[in-house]
Amino acid sequence: MKRTERVGAIIKVLSENPNRLYSLSYFCDLFQAAKSSVSEDIQTARQILESLDLGLIETVAGASGGVKLIPYISDQAAEKVLNHVCEKLQDKSRILGNGFLYTSDLMFDSNIVKRAGEIFARRFCNLGADYVVTIETKGIPVALMTAHMLNLPLVVIRRESKISEGSTVSINYFSGSAERIQKMSISKRAVTPGSKAIIIDDFMRGGGSVKGISEMLSEFDMEVVGTGVVIASTEPEKKKISDYFPLIYLGTVDENEKTIEVFPNSLIFYKKNL
Amino acid sequence: MKRTERVGAIIKVLSENPNRLYSLSYFCDLFQAAKSSVSEDIQTARQILESLDLGLIETVAGASGGVKLIPYISDQAAEKVLNHVCEKLQDKSRILGNGFLYTSDLMFDSNIVKRAGEIFARRFCNLGADYVVTIETKGIPVALMTAHMLNLPLVVIRRESKISEGSTVSINYFSGSAERIQKMSISKRAVTPGSKAIIIDDFMRGGGSVKGISEMLSEFDMEVVGTGVVIASTEPEKKKISDYFPLIYLGTVDENEKTIEVFPNSLIFYKKNL
Repeated sequence: MKRTERVGAIIKVLSENPNRLYSLSYFCDLFQAAKSSVSEDIQTARQILESLDLGLIETVAGASGGVKLIPYISDQAAEKVLNHVCEKLQDKSRILGNGFLYTSDLMFDSNIVKRAGEIFARRFCNLGADYVVTIETKGIPVALMTAHMLNLPLVVIRRESKISEGSTVSINYFSGSAERIQKMSISKRAVTPGSKAIIIDDFMRGGGSVKGISEMLSEFDMEVVGTGVVIASTEPEKKKISDYFPLIYLGTVDENEKTIEVFPNSLIFYKKNL
Repeated sequence: MKRTERVGAIIKVLSENPNRLYSLSYFCDLFQAAKSSVSEDIQTARQILESLDLGLIETVAGASGGVKLIPYISDQAAEKVLNHVCEKLQDKSRILGNGFLYTSDLMFDSNIVKRAGEIFARRFCNLGADYVVTIETKGIPVALMTAHMLNLPLVVIRRESKISEGSTVSINYFSGSAERIQKMSISKRAVTPGSKAIIIDDFMRGGGSVKGISEMLSEFDMEVVGTGVVIASTEPEKKKISDYFPLIYLGTVDENEKTIEVFPNSLIFYKKNL
């Protein structure tokens, strides 16, 4: 087997399984090749991805070491997807009244949520999280892609407790512009007490849902180490939680003039800000 | 830029964007290389993936042609993930009573649903579908991954009509062992009348939900060209729909003996059956 073939295969395997550690022996077995060759192949794979700004391969030294693709998206690719979503969001036919916008097509678009998940994963990859947590329904795709990029389990909080969730813990919380009482429910066996979570959701207005999720997780002595939302409205400026990372801000939606103000969060840009 | 680098980059781009056509010029621009070189690089990339049973690159001829990675998973990888899920499912602590099993951790495991999505995508990739359709909640991850592999939009049917879905169509249907009346609702702007859909769901017992989805889609003159479910129970043998493709069969769940009978669908194996 030639070097080109081995390098191509390494890139394929690592790309499809981000943030997962592969031992050198895994590739030695796959290629029937010596460790010294595979080490050089990995070095070449790393250079290729870096020179094209397509990804970062990390080498972990030691007996239990190996290589992994660390969560990455180039600033250019991040900017491209956010501009694309902002453009889509400005379509006036999305206005549903009462400040609501139709966004389901975007939140269920696998290409968009994959990129969004990459941005969240790049942001949150060094926080030692054990879980990605979201609440049904529209945040599930982006949370799943974030979990995939981080190689973490996804936990989905339900609106109602279901038989199929087994024994659950529920809380009531206030959410939405009308401050309605809502309920959320989590399966007891979904999480390990004392662990760390990243919360991912599709939209934040007042922050009630995310605050509710935090409170529910604190029932399990869990710590929230990061919160990401695809879209956050600029109003109300004061949210129920202070530490969150939105990809896109939604400003004024003028239902008479049929205008929608949206803009990307400039803090997403990695090289400038991290 | 060397051949090895170009081949690695082609594999990276195609792997992350399955079933999407990239023109030769896209790679010529990316690498600042001539068409003849890029053609040879693509040929090498194809050989690498085929020789390692990691994927299939298809070349589409003509002016609007190019290359794409067609949805693929090796029989070996498919068998491995299904055996893994079957083993997990046999854990007796999953028994919730009344024939229910706890499966949320598996349905929200991004590595499992990615593989399951690859199996569905491989099966359904030649049916000319326009959408992947599922119903909330636990089928969303696998449906999203299937949609991603097929490069199709995902449509999520809601249990209740939400303001954020805009104008909707709803139907009532019978589902579950108790044949309860349930409601499902779809946003009118989510689908195009006359189009074709693949239905993906996490679990099928009687087939009521899938039949409900089909009826709802027929309101839009849509045709269901394929149905995939992760787990189908062997009982009742006669379902409300006849044409479906399960990955795993769930047999008897004995609540006294604490045994769970599960086995993979042997028809998943590509080389033997397709």
